[in-house]
Amino acid sequence: MNRSLSLRSKKTHQGNESGGGTTRRFGFASMRASTQPELSKKLYRLIKSENHVISAHTSAGREQISIAAQLSEWGLSTNDDAISDISDKIGVMLSELGELEITYAHNLEDFRSVLKSIRNVEASVQPSRDKRAKITDEIQRLKYKEPQSPKLVQLEQELVRAEAENLVAEAQLSNVTRQKLKEAYAAHFAAVVERSQKQEILAKHSRRLLALLDDTPVVPGDARPAYDLERDARQILADAEEDLRNWTLELEEVPTNASLDAGAMPSMANISIASSVNGNGEQASLQGSDAVEPKHEVVV
Amino acid sequence: MNRSLSLRSKKTHQGNESGGGTTRRFGFASMRASTQPELSKKLYRLIKSENHVISAHTSAGREQISIAAQLSEWGLSTNDDAISDISDKIGVMLSELGELEITYAHNLEDFRSVLKSIRNVEASVQPSRDKRAKITDEIQRLKYKEPQSPKLVQLEQELVRAEAENLVAEAQLSNVTRQKLKEAYAAHFAAVVERSQKQEILAKHSRRLLALLDDTPVVPGDARPAYDLERDARQILADAEEDLRNWTLELEEVPTNASLDAGAMPSMANISIASSVNGNGEQASLQGSDAVEPKHEVVV
Repeated sequence: MNRSLSLRSKKTHQGNESGGGTTRRFGFASMRASTQPELSKKLYRLIKSENHVISAHTSAGREQISIAAQLSEWGLSTNDDAISDISDKIGVMLSELGELEITYAHNLEDFRSVLKSIRNVEASVQPSRDKRAKITDEIQRLKYKEPQSPKLVQLEQELVRAEAENLVAEAQLSNVTRQKLKEAYAAHFAAVVERSQKQEILAKHSRRLLALLDDTPVVPGDARPAYDLERDARQILADAEEDLRNWTLELEEVPTNASLDAGAMPSMANISIASSVNGNGEQASLQGSDAVEPKHEVVV
Repeated sequence: MNRSLSLRSKKTHQGNESGGGTTRRFGFASMRASTQPELSKKLYRLIKSENHVISAHTSAGREQISIAAQLSEWGLSTNDDAISDISDKIGVMLSELGELEITYAHNLEDFRSVLKSIRNVEASVQPSRDKRAKITDEIQRLKYKEPQSPKLVQLEQELVRAEAENLVAEAQLSNVTRQKLKEAYAAHFAAVVERSQKQEILAKHSRRLLALLDDTPVVPGDARPAYDLERDARQILADAEEDLRNWTLELEEVPTNASLDAGAMPSMANISIASSVNGNGEQASLQGSDAVEPKHEVVV
């Protein structure tokens, strides 16, 4: 990690679409991305890319499980009792490593669907911004062309409503984005820790298995001593199984204060949004309806 | 790991080619495998499959690095200082996670090339077995058809030489297989431990970064308190970097007694193979020529 402390080059400007995702820029995924509202395009692409990571880990896991079986078969075919037993047991371990890789991919799926809730709010906030901008433009146009138009009064009223609606939308966006970003990546990193710790357990026991294989060289015609360590090998598998069974995820908590109601507003009855949302129709439904106190919770 | 303690079904017989690798059975790789000597076919396929695992991890790593950049770009575009800073730092962590995945793939490459040395010995032992079998067959044929043939004496002598050569070949196979199997998988599992421990370090520090993102919801129109945790976020990256720098691989050793000379025989001057390899021409070159004592060494 000897690189800079930021991924952004000094030249990067907002709206610059370059970055890691350029390889699929003109692909099918990008075509569909172009139908996404501007606001949610970046996250839309990121969520697509996450699919590639997920399928790569799934594929790695499946191949590992396949190789585990192949190793076991190969060991059997050597007609060497020691190699046969150890390779079969190593195969069991490799297979479990593969399963953990697939579980990791499943956990990333969950992470990915949490990210989608941010993208969805982004997509839904875009029309609210567009509406406000459109009314503002129309007012400017009318003021220039027909300064006395009675439609101006109507538009000014519409603008107040649109601004109020947009204020709510932006607050929802901010609330959901912060909450879900934390939740998503807290889960992502918890999944990394789980995979890491479990695979480390398996790898260490697997090395114990290897120690049972006597690699003292023989001279031609000499028979190797009979292999009698099946019991020890089985015990190592049992040890690994027990360690995995006793494993629990122990992590520093990621604290959260996010306690949102169905309207993505603070779920506290004592907060009124009337002062900031002047008379628009959404006030009632957006105001916190659950009479619960904010709790200090934990994301994962 | 609640499955059986062996990957072999009770019905599995030697020579049964089924197992995990069936999906590519009729593929191009299998066609080339069919030109491999029988003895090395299984390992040939396994080594091919390992390529798929390696490229899956490489691909997962590259995509992760791409996503890291996308996340950072997205964060910048939110115009939210806190999200922008945290997402950029999380991006640095994700990028490093991706690099570790690629390093893991490189380590598997090394593991894979050690496996190849077993496959190569297997492939080279096959002709020796074939030769012995062919001479034996011919002797049987002649004994039946021309029991008085003078060629029988010549063939019997050839058989003694072929048997001697094969004894050496089988000893080489056994010596190399055991040594390299241990070496290969000890390295494989060491790579798993390295990736696991380093990724765990990154994941835990990443969760500390997330804790810096205040997800207390706001009501419409309220401004969020200014974000002033850049310094803390930078410190977390520095902590992660330092932990990775101080990291060392600490593992129980996998002991080895394999100390082979260039002929894949025990590299000890005091061992003579004359008693088992009766008068064949390879004796001198196969006998241990290095006057070193066998050492208790460690595979990785």
